[in-house]
Amino acid sequence: MSNLKAKEEKAPEEVKNMGGRWLTDHIVCDEVDPLCNPLGPNNKVVFAPGIVTGTDAPSSGRISVGGKSPLTGGIKEANAGTAFSQKIARLGYKAIVVEGLPKEKKLWLLKIDKDGAEFLPADEWTGKGLHEVFPLLFNKFGENVGISAIGVAGERLMSSAGICFNDIDNRPSRYAGRGGLGAVLGSKGLKFIVVDDKGAKGVEIVDKDAFKKGTKKLTEALTTHDITKPGGSLNTYGTAVLVNIMNEAGGYPTRNFSEGRFEGAAATSGEAIHDICNERGGAGKTGHPCHPGCIIQCSNVYPRPDGTEHVSCIEYESDWAFGANCGIDDLDAIADLIWLSNDYGLDTIEAGGTIAVAMEAQLAEFGDGPKAIELMKEIGEGTPLGHVLGSGAATTGKVFGVVRVPGVKGQNMPAYEPRAVKGIGMVYATSTMGADHTAGYTIAPEILGVGGEADPLDADKAALARGFQEATAFIDSTGYCLFIAFAVLDIPEGLEGTVESCNGVLGTDWTTDDIARIGREVLDKELEFNKAAGFTKAHDRLPEFMKYEKLPPHNTVFDVPDEELDKVHRG
Amino acid sequence: MSNLKAKEEKAPEEVKNMGGRWLTDHIVCDEVDPLCNPLGPNNKVVFAPGIVTGTDAPSSGRISVGGKSPLTGGIKEANAGTAFSQKIARLGYKAIVVEGLPKEKKLWLLKIDKDGAEFLPADEWTGKGLHEVFPLLFNKFGENVGISAIGVAGERLMSSAGICFNDIDNRPSRYAGRGGLGAVLGSKGLKFIVVDDKGAKGVEIVDKDAFKKGTKKLTEALTTHDITKPGGSLNTYGTAVLVNIMNEAGGYPTRNFSEGRFEGAAATSGEAIHDICNERGGAGKTGHPCHPGCIIQCSNVYPRPDGTEHVSCIEYESDWAFGANCGIDDLDAIADLIWLSNDYGLDTIEAGGTIAVAMEAQLAEFGDGPKAIELMKEIGEGTPLGHVLGSGAATTGKVFGVVRVPGVKGQNMPAYEPRAVKGIGMVYATSTMGADHTAGYTIAPEILGVGGEADPLDADKAALARGFQEATAFIDSTGYCLFIAFAVLDIPEGLEGTVESCNGVLGTDWTTDDIARIGREVLDKELEFNKAAGFTKAHDRLPEFMKYEKLPPHNTVFDVPDEELDKVHRG
Repeated sequence: MSNLKAKEEKAPEEVKNMGGRWLTDHIVCDEVDPLCNPLGPNNKVVFAPGIVTGTDAPSSGRISVGGKSPLTGGIKEANAGTAFSQKIARLGYKAIVVEGLPKEKKLWLLKIDKDGAEFLPADEWTGKGLHEVFPLLFNKFGENVGISAIGVAGERLMSSAGICFNDIDNRPSRYAGRGGLGAVLGSKGLKFIVVDDKGAKGVEIVDKDAFKKGTKKLTEALTTHDITKPGGSLNTYGTAVLVNIMNEAGGYPTRNFSEGRFEGAAATSGEAIHDICNERGGAGKTGHPCHPGCIIQCSNVYPRPDGTEHVSCIEYESDWAFGANCGIDDLDAIADLIWLSNDYGLDTIEAGGTIAVAMEAQLAEFGDGPKAIELMKEIGEGTPLGHVLGSGAATTGKVFGVVRVPGVKGQNMPAYEPRAVKGIGMVYATSTMGADHTAGYTIAPEILGVGGEADPLDADKAALARGFQEATAFIDSTGYCLFIAFAVLDIPEGLEGTVESCNGVLGTDWTTDDIARIGREVLDKELEFNKAAGFTKAHDRLPEFMKYEKLPPHNTVFDVPDEELDKVHRG
Repeated sequence: MSNLKAKEEKAPEEVKNMGGRWLTDHIVCDEVDPLCNPLGPNNKVVFAPGIVTGTDAPSSGRISVGGKSPLTGGIKEANAGTAFSQKIARLGYKAIVVEGLPKEKKLWLLKIDKDGAEFLPADEWTGKGLHEVFPLLFNKFGENVGISAIGVAGERLMSSAGICFNDIDNRPSRYAGRGGLGAVLGSKGLKFIVVDDKGAKGVEIVDKDAFKKGTKKLTEALTTHDITKPGGSLNTYGTAVLVNIMNEAGGYPTRNFSEGRFEGAAATSGEAIHDICNERGGAGKTGHPCHPGCIIQCSNVYPRPDGTEHVSCIEYESDWAFGANCGIDDLDAIADLIWLSNDYGLDTIEAGGTIAVAMEAQLAEFGDGPKAIELMKEIGEGTPLGHVLGSGAATTGKVFGVVRVPGVKGQNMPAYEPRAVKGIGMVYATSTMGADHTAGYTIAPEILGVGGEADPLDADKAALARGFQEATAFIDSTGYCLFIAFAVLDIPEGLEGTVESCNGVLGTDWTTDDIARIGREVLDKELEFNKAAGFTKAHDRLPEFMKYEKLPPHNTVFDVPDEELDKVHRG
């Protein structure tokens, strides 16, 4: 960005088989000083499609984004499902690396197509909400481009700014949200990447038979498993189907992690969203895909009472973050908050967690939707308070002297209570990313009975927390949506198919035994970066209050011994 | 504080010879979990007079305060010169340990005298400026009590809140400022400690002859060395005598550490303060002591144009923090800012550094005194912006996306530029306290030619940075003011006298060889705490921008190799 030049480089042999998180990690670890200031000249942002992204492998349109996080101070990989990723892959790019700082404080748009790349001034789309800007961009560059964007939160260098991508209907709604990489792009002055894959050569598939065989097995698994199949729970109710399940389990964090059960759960559940979509009709729908080629289709479009579109989508984490975690039981208010979060370019998990911490600091009452909306608007307006809230829950807690800040490594926890579900707490504690459910979704066996069964209150889960993190690191490298895990954990042929489809693209001969090997390699690289950035075992701990505050209804504390946590990565 | 009980305990044998920093460290390291939340129930605040405090040893009225810092997340010891300390010592208390959190959110006053201790509600003195409150307290409890206090900054749990003590004229002006221990007292609901030593038994002196001989040698050194003697540079011009010296050396940090020389240095120098005190007359004076028994007397009372008292005191660090570092060359504006800082109960170094970072974030122009005053008043009013600024420079930088934040371990640098004076940069980097000149004042040999001479731009100073930190840790344990170092570094008998006076009080037989041993023991204990709190070598680094931004006028970066920094504590 320092000279506004885009340079094409041939990918070196060593990264040939890498994709997604594996590749972003590799570049970040090789090229970024772990002690650099995340918003300074020496950080980089790397975008990489997964190994099979851009092919017709099912549910494989994930884009990984990596860099040093301004939120955690460690390495960060966040990913999203979007046609943007498929288009980058089809143009033949393994990764886009954004580096340097612009000489003048100005924002730019990078346009990429088959003939190359160019920078355009982004002034006319600056300082505005993304819901206003996206239609203007699609109007200018064509309905078939893919877009990566930061909103005003990223422009203002706020640490909970995510990176936004277009969904299947070109909404600004799919987020590589976590860890503040939007602020890093803001520091670099890169507001948009617009990619047009017209005339692209497509993704080369080395062994077409293996690929075909693999994707068939995976598709078979996805379309037969109760969770992922058409008409299955995700497709029918969306991810918010988890609301009632987690609430029943007493592990649904309520009012800033002070309780594990929310009296407004039913009113804000996936079932309620489904019913409202049906009753209000109009634009409302469930079973909506985030990108072409997804066969799980867990997204939704939430309607206003008059049937016009309100927001897409109300997924479990966003629903919870602005709902139970803020004590808000009104789906329409939650929809407003998600819409604002998408409009400003924020991570909904961090934004909701921050509002909850602000409520803890008595800036609003728990449950007060209108006041929560006012607080969110402070972020959009860039007031001093907005800057605080946009910096995330840990900073907000620091500024207002709040002790109950439920984060790890500066990143706020998502919608699973570690005192009620110990394995996910171990993942939060030991993840290289800060508190993150997608780093190792042990909820599958602990709550859903998928991939085996584990008692959620059992603390002896180092191997489980390790295994899930390794498998996840592999899946995050393939470009497949993490939700394929529901099916492939239970159906061995689906897992084989996942690996075989990668073999098809790459010409490799991996087996399912390679999953843990590759996942371990990815994690070890991240751990090495974090160690050099100053992380120690002391950072692999949950916040102190979870050790002395008992969580209702189970009235348990987080009692996993430190030694057990230290075994997660080091066996 | 959880049950509002004060309990007297006999000091165990193992702490018999400890005082000041040595003792606060010992108790904090033994009793505080390094991973606790600094504002939560498991942190403690420890007050301890030094070994000779309360005797008539010269310039020995320091009080050490220790705990886990909400600013740095590591161990903290901050100290101040005040009769409060002498009175605690004369009552026979080696330390006061404040622990627990109050059941209701309320503030309290702890009254201590020879008959015991009791808690009184502090409501009537809450939410007010300390300049208003101190006279009320002295009126109620008598002019001869000593007072420890937090201001509104501490009440509001702000991380740059210091702990305030009365000066010799009962002003709220002597601060154990650094590291936010005022916020920890705020979390504990302890707003004041009032100590009355009427009828106290005094400090027991085991070997009166040794004590007398030692204090005589030290007094002789202090009264003959050019820097510390009556009519010497500190006594005549105050600590701000350093302004012109550091500016001449090109190491006077200007406009948030973007330059090393300030065009307004002469106008804000110690010489200028001295002249103004003489010209305006009235209350103005230099050569003012902070506590009874000080023979250096480097404080001052700065007058308004009409001769009435403006503020006490304008010392070098405060002068610089609100002056050169904010680009402000007007002593009257600087006096206003110091007065506000004292009134709210803030650390002036952190407060000034924060205003400078806010200026970097374009909340004000560098040099705009009136706007700087407005920003300070936000802290006093407790607005959201005030909460940010009260949280210190690092948090302010984080909230506003500022890269040039000149801190280490979350604590902002004081008034010596590490790119122009490498040894002090090594101390900033490796101090257990975060950036802190009083952790090892290598400025003595590097700039002042005291205790030898060292080229400020030379980077080979691990031994120097180690030696000064060890000697300082010892002095901080004795209760002597660190400024005795100027004399005793040059006059061997003064150093012997320092040790002998301790022997006199304790009945020990230490020699000057024990200084480094004891200092090392203190530092190792602190390092151990910090390691358990999550600090690694990666935290012993200066901010990245100092490695790539050249500082005028020398146009040098901080080029001390990491390996050299790592040798400081580990030989």
